[in-house]
Amino acid sequence: MTATVTKRMMFFSGGSHPVLAKEIAAELGASITPQTEHTFANGESFVRFDRSVRGCDAFVLQTETRPINTWLLQHLIMLDALKRASAKRITVLLPFYPYSRQDKKHYGREPITARLVADMLATAGADRIMTVDLHTAQGQGFFDGPVDHLRAQPMLAEHVLSRYAGANFTVVAPDSGRVRLAETWAELLNAPMAIIQRRDTLEGEHKGIHTVVGDVEGRLCVVVDDMIDTGATVTGATKLLLSEGATEVITTATHAVLSGDAGERIAACGVKEVVLTDTVPIPDSSRFPQLTVLPIAPLLADAIQAVFDDDSVEGLFAR
Amino acid sequence: MTATVTKRMMFFSGGSHPVLAKEIAAELGASITPQTEHTFANGESFVRFDRSVRGCDAFVLQTETRPINTWLLQHLIMLDALKRASAKRITVLLPFYPYSRQDKKHYGREPITARLVADMLATAGADRIMTVDLHTAQGQGFFDGPVDHLRAQPMLAEHVLSRYAGANFTVVAPDSGRVRLAETWAELLNAPMAIIQRRDTLEGEHKGIHTVVGDVEGRLCVVVDDMIDTGATVTGATKLLLSEGATEVITTATHAVLSGDAGERIAACGVKEVVLTDTVPIPDSSRFPQLTVLPIAPLLADAIQAVFDDDSVEGLFAR
Amino acid sequence: MTATVTKRMMFFSGGSHPVLAKEIAAELGASITPQTEHTFANGESFVRFDRSVRGCDAFVLQTETRPINTWLLQHLIMLDALKRASAKRITVLLPFYPYSRQDKKHYGREPITARLVADMLATAGADRIMTVDLHTAQGQGFFDGPVDHLRAQPMLAEHVLSRYAGANFTVVAPDSGRVRLAETWAELLNAPMAIIQRRDTLEGEHKGIHTVVGDVEGRLCVVVDDMIDTGATVTGATKLLLSEGATEVITTATHAVLSGDAGERIAACGVKEVVLTDTVPIPDSSRFPQLTVLPIAPLLADAIQAVFDDDSVEGLFAR
Amino acid sequence: MTATVTKRMMFFSGGSHPVLAKEIAAELGASITPQTEHTFANGESFVRFDRSVRGCDAFVLQTETRPINTWLLQHLIMLDALKRASAKRITVLLPFYPYSRQDKKHYGREPITARLVADMLATAGADRIMTVDLHTAQGQGFFDGPVDHLRAQPMLAEHVLSRYAGANFTVVAPDSGRVRLAETWAELLNAPMAIIQRRDTLEGEHKGIHTVVGDVEGRLCVVVDDMIDTGATVTGATKLLLSEGATEVITTATHAVLSGDAGERIAACGVKEVVLTDTVPIPDSSRFPQLTVLPIAPLLADAIQAVFDDDSVEGLFAR
Amino acid sequence: MTATVTKRMMFFSGGSHPVLAKEIAAELGASITPQTEHTFANGESFVRFDRSVRGCDAFVLQTETRPINTWLLQHLIMLDALKRASAKRITVLLPFYPYSRQDKKHYGREPITARLVADMLATAGADRIMTVDLHTAQGQGFFDGPVDHLRAQPMLAEHVLSRYAGANFTVVAPDSGRVRLAETWAELLNAPMAIIQRRDTLEGEHKGIHTVVGDVEGRLCVVVDDMIDTGATVTGATKLLLSEGATEVITTATHAVLSGDAGERIAACGVKEVVLTDTVPIPDSSRFPQLTVLPIAPLLADAIQAVFDDDSVEGLFAR
Amino acid sequence: MTATVTKRMMFFSGGSHPVLAKEIAAELGASITPQTEHTFANGESFVRFDRSVRGCDAFVLQTETRPINTWLLQHLIMLDALKRASAKRITVLLPFYPYSRQDKKHYGREPITARLVADMLATAGADRIMTVDLHTAQGQGFFDGPVDHLRAQPMLAEHVLSRYAGANFTVVAPDSGRVRLAETWAELLNAPMAIIQRRDTLEGEHKGIHTVVGDVEGRLCVVVDDMIDTGATVTGATKLLLSEGATEVITTATHAVLSGDAGERIAACGVKEVVLTDTVPIPDSSRFPQLTVLPIAPLLADAIQAVFDDDSVEGLFAR
Repeated sequence: MTATVTKRMMFFSGGSHPVLAKEIAAELGASITPQTEHTFANGESFVRFDRSVRGCDAFVLQTETRPINTWLLQHLIMLDALKRASAKRITVLLPFYPYSRQDKKHYGREPITARLVADMLATAGADRIMTVDLHTAQGQGFFDGPVDHLRAQPMLAEHVLSRYAGANFTVVAPDSGRVRLAETWAELLNAPMAIIQRRDTLEGEHKGIHTVVGDVEGRLCVVVDDMIDTGATVTGATKLLLSEGATEVITTATHAVLSGDAGERIAACGVKEVVLTDTVPIPDSSRFPQLTVLPIAPLLADAIQAVFDDDSVEGLFAR
Repeated sequence: MTATVTKRMMFFSGGSHPVLAKEIAAELGASITPQTEHTFANGESFVRFDRSVRGCDAFVLQTETRPINTWLLQHLIMLDALKRASAKRITVLLPFYPYSRQDKKHYGREPITARLVADMLATAGADRIMTVDLHTAQGQGFFDGPVDHLRAQPMLAEHVLSRYAGANFTVVAPDSGRVRLAETWAELLNAPMAIIQRRDTLEGEHKGIHTVVGDVEGRLCVVVDDMIDTGATVTGATKLLLSEGATEVITTATHAVLSGDAGERIAACGVKEVVLTDTVPIPDSSRFPQLTVLPIAPLLADAIQAVFDDDSVEGLFAR
Repeated sequence: MTATVTKRMMFFSGGSHPVLAKEIAAELGASITPQTEHTFANGESFVRFDRSVRGCDAFVLQTETRPINTWLLQHLIMLDALKRASAKRITVLLPFYPYSRQDKKHYGREPITARLVADMLATAGADRIMTVDLHTAQGQGFFDGPVDHLRAQPMLAEHVLSRYAGANFTVVAPDSGRVRLAETWAELLNAPMAIIQRRDTLEGEHKGIHTVVGDVEGRLCVVVDDMIDTGATVTGATKLLLSEGATEVITTATHAVLSGDAGERIAACGVKEVVLTDTVPIPDSSRFPQLTVLPIAPLLADAIQAVFDDDSVEGLFAR
Repeated sequence: MTATVTKRMMFFSGGSHPVLAKEIAAELGASITPQTEHTFANGESFVRFDRSVRGCDAFVLQTETRPINTWLLQHLIMLDALKRASAKRITVLLPFYPYSRQDKKHYGREPITARLVADMLATAGADRIMTVDLHTAQGQGFFDGPVDHLRAQPMLAEHVLSRYAGANFTVVAPDSGRVRLAETWAELLNAPMAIIQRRDTLEGEHKGIHTVVGDVEGRLCVVVDDMIDTGATVTGATKLLLSEGATEVITTATHAVLSGDAGERIAACGVKEVVLTDTVPIPDSSRFPQLTVLPIAPLLADAIQAVFDDDSVEGLFAR
Repeated sequence: MTATVTKRMMFFSGGSHPVLAKEIAAELGASITPQTEHTFANGESFVRFDRSVRGCDAFVLQTETRPINTWLLQHLIMLDALKRASAKRITVLLPFYPYSRQDKKHYGREPITARLVADMLATAGADRIMTVDLHTAQGQGFFDGPVDHLRAQPMLAEHVLSRYAGANFTVVAPDSGRVRLAETWAELLNAPMAIIQRRDTLEGEHKGIHTVVGDVEGRLCVVVDDMIDTGATVTGATKLLLSEGATEVITTATHAVLSGDAGERIAACGVKEVVLTDTVPIPDSSRFPQLTVLPIAPLLADAIQAVFDDDSVEGLFAR
Repeated sequence: MTATVTKRMMFFSGGSHPVLAKEIAAELGASITPQTEHTFANGESFVRFDRSVRGCDAFVLQTETRPINTWLLQHLIMLDALKRASAKRITVLLPFYPYSRQDKKHYGREPITARLVADMLATAGADRIMTVDLHTAQGQGFFDGPVDHLRAQPMLAEHVLSRYAGANFTVVAPDSGRVRLAETWAELLNAPMAIIQRRDTLEGEHKGIHTVVGDVEGRLCVVVDDMIDTGATVTGATKLLLSEGATEVITTATHAVLSGDAGERIAACGVKEVVLTDTVPIPDSSRFPQLTVLPIAPLLADAIQAVFDDDSVEGLFAR
């Protein structure tokens, strides 16, 4: 008994970012597979898919946003259900990878939670991971299988270049961990670089201050980061750069975490524009006048289509 | 270079049940290993142990209570940190095992989350699990290693027998899943049994009603369950049994989930006494006059000591 | 070099149940893949497939019947040979899952052999398991992959309903472990339920007796079980129910183990009809006048076809 | 809380070779851990240990003898129970390794059951394997952990050398697979070698005949093998050698499988002596006048003691 | 969204045997996938594929030749890159399997490197292995998956039979480990067999000598081996056989390792012809007048095509 | 049978760095376990340990130096032999971790060889890894177990501080990947920081030039790196800094790879001092007048002792 093999894409979404799910589905011309989900009285998550998933090529979206542990567990539970229901291949979509900053031990007796997350995804049934702009690229090596690491910087840089064409840019790394990113941006903008050094050991009134390394006077500073969380880094950097003579400061990052009153604080710090993407949902209460949000759905949809078609994902970034 | 090998017990506690942690530590004559824990602005959990754990025999307490996904993740993160910090053996203490009710697929495309939890614990570093009164005993088979399955029923039954000595008991299973438990109790109390049958297919006004199978008139009914969550089961059972002529109804269970306004509802249902243990924390707002809480710490501490000493845990339940 | 992918189903059978193998093959319109099998002088099993199996979608039938360890080993050996010969996907067909009753530790230092069997199947090469009416549904969680859990009860219930239309049924659980099953049947038959309680602690002449909980007088009792092994349970239940005034007793179960002289004993106990399926072979010597055997092959063949076609197996049970 | 670590040896035995178990226990000055074992009516095996095994260094004896699949399953079940009951380290004792001859694929679509057995032992909980004279030494590589491969040949050779001191030996390999063994023996006895070649392609009356390669006329031929199963090889070799002028023929092997009427046939073939060990039980019905059985228990006991004491096992064979 | 599944073969080659790679590609009508490879200043290997490999059926060639550890590492690195780049299935082609002779422990505390190699291949991403004439067939069991074990002997034997038609052959095993191979050849050539025995324990001037077992006088001796490495075995055998009266000696083997000045030494030993294949590259400096090299590419290409087409590989050897 | 458990440290060394092995052994007061090692004619490595290793706590030294693949394979083979010979715990000592720079995919279809190395170590038997100054700290997460990550910078900084006390330091990151390291050094030296930016996109004659970001004029520049390989980075940085007005330039790094003629080139570039450690062997031919080598053996010996004693390794770096 023989038959021709066909493959069928199915798209699934956890509850963390329904807007993005809809946008990706629209880009793909697909629908979000209906599911029954609820939270039991005691807080346990539950998911059941309402249609047969047997043999499908499953793409399962979730992102890191509050309450992150609940969304992560829901994601794992969805993978478990897909595995047990005979999905053929399971690709995890994590536009913002959970716990990506906990990717090493700073001191003894710390966890490496980013690796733990990769292992839990594999345990639950993930065959492949697709994510955007990991905190450090080494995180790809935490998963023992294909990781499609998408890059939002080209899109962000295109926006900056078109809006501020001709400006005399300086790309600024707000801390030592972002210098590699800044160097990439400096190449994209064909600009010099500066970095902000933290000086913990200066004494007296200077203790813990930050100083700028490089020339920023009279220049349009582009502060680049992978994510904006509390906003402390970007507001501190902006104020420092302006005080050092920068003409204007704009900031870009991929992940708009914007915890607490980050929006308010950024709005007041003197920054000219903050360019982010919507890899995580940005509630209205976190938005502020200087904010520009670029949609990430087209990039993810293109990558999903390429994976389903066995086309190159790297090719999406070829120049 | 040779040396005599010594072993060192260390006791760790996540944040879900600090009272129980203290009680267990006191029973053991041990201290809770200090740890630095915090939640990042975006909701990520972090834990670092403040003392060397190298080579220790680690016992790590957490229980399922709200917010359960956060406590579960914190537990896994603690295990990961212990594994990477060279703990010699890691025993997971879960007085109330998370997602224990999701232990099978009722329909297609459901997860088996209780198995997923076992796999995640193993992935994070657990060598062994200790838990109390699993929802079904088959759950022991979800973990590929030693599971010490402690039983609180003897303690609960001792309380009932001493307080209601001489009563003409009937043990009542509130639903079909608890009949095996009821049979065990019936043996402990040397009593007949009754069960409550759910009739979904009756039509008209009788649809979905519950009926009592067995004789309860004029008897002290002991409704037995493994956990009380919303209280719907126990309040429904109590009212039904009283309406069928039971003289009094008491209820026992191991796990006091008591979600929402369960306490209030139980208080008003006519039950005489509800005997539970503190495998999960019971906030004052959930307590009610008829509630009796038996401490679970002595049982756990005895079992920990036995594991550390390579003594029999089964022996704790020998008659 | 590219080519269209086709899939090819191949059906294999161990030696435990040749009749069922032939019936399934006939239902599928397939043939049983020829194999060379023999037992060495010292008792070792050996199997070699006589046709190329490279790239096939393999379905491999075996069931638990005496000599069960030999059939289980033969099954594992067949899986090993298929794995090493590049079968693309291997689905294990176990109409009666071996060691399904050993699914938990009753006391310390016991094995959980049902989990061990799942692990051995995976080790040997199983990608998926298909089985009928596990002893407890939790057993699905012992395998880390898809388990298609088929249900024979609808077929059994249809038989009972058509033959005894209009009877005043009472569904009887012969022990506490079967009450959940009885409740399902009670819903299918729209009937009340009774259960048989074992009283171990009664003293003197009453020690170890069984009593009926619920009303059975003047009713047609349907004793429901997942398997009939020695027949002790069903004969005891039948006699007890008749002595308590039941008008007639019929019994149903999925798995006809019928060890030893079970057939003879059942024939003499007063039961009106015993309805079983042929998930295990039933030799003539075990058959008795009241026995009705419903064929399981159509259900298995439908499920195999659905798996091969990536259709829903759950859909086979949709009402 | 700290304590000195002590270790405790416990010795366990499946049901395949009770005599050997007693002898090993006696050699060790240990006792066989009592266990409750039975076979259910339908043929399922069950084992429970009657004493706490927590933290012990377990040595678990079983051997391959009929019914081999039952003994193998029982062995696996014992390992599972030990693992779940927290034995610290589990050493599998298999004096005669099951399915050791199925260690390669002769043709396509065959299993490699010797590897499957190693994987199943690991799956069930084995940390280490101890065995005697594997069919091929490569089998050690099938297990991913320590394999203590004991050698009985020195003991067998010592017997031959002392009883036939001064004889003009020729060592004979009864087939091509045993030539390496024969070469080792030739070195031990300082003797020339001969081998028996199977000629399948000769035509007519000579088809399938065996011929002797090497000189045997007027010599005491020592036919060496790892096991004697049906006896066909040894009886054929003996007759051939005598017909070629050998003065006398003696045979040695480690494993006395002696299936069917092997004993009778060997007794009648003209062999002078057959020297075997008792790695498998030899029932009286299989014994014959020319048989000499050397006890294997001392070797196994010495090796167990060395493993428990962390002494060298290799040292037992040092000259 | 559904699509027909197509499969695409891609052929990859490490740097160990470029000539063979080209020949296989030519046989297949395929091209070698271009890759960027280099060795860093400190000796680290690096490989990147220049075309998308997503979803392909990858066949990756490497063989054991000097510098063998570098080629092995390069092979593993290529597998890792393919796995992470989403190749669908990865078949490792190892015409000469590395470390194949280290397949057992001769003494305690030795590695079993052939098993280690199998495990490393699996760790790096191999789904299947294809190799030619393993040192011992048991090596197939070291890999937990399909191993296609190709046999070059039929091709070698065909050459010998056609060139020396009608000769009175004797097949000679140059040591005890090759007797099984010699027996196979003896069947192919319908010839008697002889073997060379090593006598280590003879004393005085005879210590360590080799002697011939079997008749070789006046016969054309065909010395058969799986590989020729230093040439010591074959030159020793040739001289010994000629001195014992063989009319001529030819030698065949699959793997032409030819380390050091093996070629020179063989050229001078009196052998008439040495028939090898090119599973490893044979530099001009190792070649000698009596050498005949048969190409292995057709056999490998046929097997690759069969695997890609899901046809039988065993069928390539069917008579 | 019970006994007190003792532990025994054994120290092993591969062939890559015999001087360091001797120094560590001397620091520990231990000896290097004797082993038989050789390379077969065809290049295969082989190792056998000459003393029993059963039950030992093994520490196995190897480092990355040419020929790196051979040393890596030898390391893996030693681990395999230790695992199969029943070492109790195996700690891998890798002062310079192989392939540490290949820790991420820069483009598609690249390997992550640093993760592959971690997996191969685990496959071969490693329980724990000890290494010094990984290229990126995320590499710790590639191994699923304890990684003791030692830091040589404190030792290097102490040297610089004592020799150049009172200098007006500027710490210079020679490229963007080392800025985090430079920031740590800036804190240790209480100094400002500069970095060297690579400008790939400048056109014409400026293409590919490097520029200094930060102030270096009139300052003692300390260029910090984790390793010096070809010397191109450090010589380029030195020349650039001197041309920008630095008074003097010194360089420090942990790993002295010094490939090719790195020594010569560095000697001629104007650097005042180059401070390295001997995590890799430094042949005389690579040494140059400005080179200072600090011994790494004391740090490794302290860490080994701490691991053996179950003391804190982190404590070695506590201030």
